[in-house]
Amino acid sequence: MRTYQLGRGPNRPVGGVDVFRWDGYEGADALPFSAMWYRVPAGGTSPADQHPEVELSIVVRGDAAVEIDGNEPVDVRTGDAFLLEAGERHVVHNRRTDEPLVVFSAYWHPEADHG
Amino acid sequence: MRTYQLGRGPNRPVGGVDVFRWDGYEGADALPFSAMWYRVPAGGTSPADQHPEVELSIVVRGDAAVEIDGNEPVDVRTGDAFLLEAGERHVVHNRRTDEPLVVFSAYWHPEADHG
Repeated sequence: MRTYQLGRGPNRPVGGVDVFRWDGYEGADALPFSAMWYRVPAGGTSPADQHPEVELSIVVRGDAAVEIDGNEPVDVRTGDAFLLEAGERHVVHNRRTDEPLVVFSAYWHPEADHG
Repeated sequence: MRTYQLGRGPNRPVGGVDVFRWDGYEGADALPFSAMWYRVPAGGTSPADQHPEVELSIVVRGDAAVEIDGNEPVDVRTGDAFLLEAGERHVVHNRRTDEPLVVFSAYWHPEADHG
């Protein structure tokens, strides 16, 4: 067994959002996806993002509101998940003003053969 | 975007542990892994489990202590992750006596070609 601790690896912040990508974590290259945590400050919002990877996210702390293509944000609460299709333009709001939002994401290229 | 809410799908408990497998969730068949949540009651322990799949787990509520092959349990706190190799015999303890432990797990057969 290996364990991975939030906040232990390198942080490469993007627009005020802490981003902890698992690239370089021991054993992470054997996963059938890439992985990261990100942390949105209290009351904050992530920069708009859009990418060719499919992305499955789990809210591990706090409550998110996820906005797709400028539509009405959808609430995603602690423990719940959201699946972004390839190319969906998304923004993640931290609904709470008193604590950070933390999200774990797995992401992969949809064209890959997953066996 | 799709969202998945903890506790909304079918629960198939195993030895006192609630198990919410994503099989049958809309869109989940497109993931390069299987997925589930499980919930260990306050002060409880999961039945011993051992399987050919590799399993990446994220603690989404509470604090876990994960025991491999009867060794000293390893603490895994909220937001942290643990990666079980194929065939590792594991038991998951809920370290807290006042609230359930909730874990999200992704699991897959290691021999699959992930492209």
